[in-house]
Amino acid sequence: MTSTRRDTYTPETLLSVAVQVFNERGYDGTSMEHLSKAAGISKSSIYHHVTGKEELLRRAVSRALDGLFAVLDEGPATRGRAVERVEYVTRRTVEVLVDELPYVTLLLRVRGNTRTERWALERRREFDHRVADLMKAAAADGDLRSDMDIKIATRLLFGMVNSLVEWYRPQPGGGDGADRRQVADTVVRLAFDGLRTGH
Amino acid sequence: MTSTRRDTYTPETLLSVAVQVFNERGYDGTSMEHLSKAAGISKSSIYHHVTGKEELLRRAVSRALDGLFAVLDEGPATRGRAVERVEYVTRRTVEVLVDELPYVTLLLRVRGNTRTERWALERRREFDHRVADLMKAAAADGDLRSDMDIKIATRLLFGMVNSLVEWYRPQPGGGDGADRRQVADTVVRLAFDGLRTGH
Repeated sequence: MTSTRRDTYTPETLLSVAVQVFNERGYDGTSMEHLSKAAGISKSSIYHHVTGKEELLRRAVSRALDGLFAVLDEGPATRGRAVERVEYVTRRTVEVLVDELPYVTLLLRVRGNTRTERWALERRREFDHRVADLMKAAAADGDLRSDMDIKIATRLLFGMVNSLVEWYRPQPGGGDGADRRQVADTVVRLAFDGLRTGH
Repeated sequence: MTSTRRDTYTPETLLSVAVQVFNERGYDGTSMEHLSKAAGISKSSIYHHVTGKEELLRRAVSRALDGLFAVLDEGPATRGRAVERVEYVTRRTVEVLVDELPYVTLLLRVRGNTRTERWALERRREFDHRVADLMKAAAADGDLRSDMDIKIATRLLFGMVNSLVEWYRPQPGGGDGADRRQVADTVVRLAFDGLRTGH
């Protein structure tokens, strides 16, 4: 599953292998034995880096959450009309999803059986609330159509963005970011201006 | 989990309980023992109705697939401009999702480990292809914006619609269908005309 040699193992490479295994088997279905086999190192070597699989989960979802929350503090997300801010946050959220795909995939699949999972769900809800507040502000400014329910529209916007983890796969050799830009553009155009021409 | 008495059991009520258990535990994680406990009837009584859990899965996903494919044969889905047809199919797909929520939820979670699951995935892809073809036709008619990638836009449209199974819960007492109509309207407006006012 990996060709990384044990003498080059770092907490970072271990995390990357763990996230892949969690996404394939589900977090509940992953044992330290599975992680040890996938990483090609002994369980005791893993315990040298982390206290157990829950710590790996916490690090992995933290990476996704840190990326998402950082977007909310970027300049264009904090000033100007709410509709422009929510558009910016949508675009950047797509970019974070693309850049941190396995980590955000794991975050979105978290179910809430352990303390770490419940913490991750809570943080995710906090992020969703921040964006929902921006959507409400944009509606109050009269910049969002008034013939739709804003709560439902917010859920649909998240649903559309989050669906990326189910179907988006980076183009091989797409290292110039054209791919990432195209998907972010398409999400923003569809969400804010719709599919149809002629309006 | 259910108060249905065993003497009133029908294949229909058994199916409804099975779908609930499959959605809660995952199909792989569900045993005949789990189904027997949830239904409050013995395993041999279940075997009186079906050959096993795979038959229950097949019946459940068939119900979802039949509902979805029926939409494609309805009048407004088969004549007129492609953009109107795809809009109609989007609206009706949302309605089928709402009406058959547990069945479509199960369909969308199918992974492909058994023959029945692979068959369901194949049928789902066939449905997606039919809608993707309509989207291409609408783009060729010049009725969809040309500044977005149609393949990506089609995926996003499905992603948005399918996200309903993750967050949509019918309003208690929403039996007048206002709820269902509102969610279908919001999906269609967002997807085709976008969130933003003023165009």
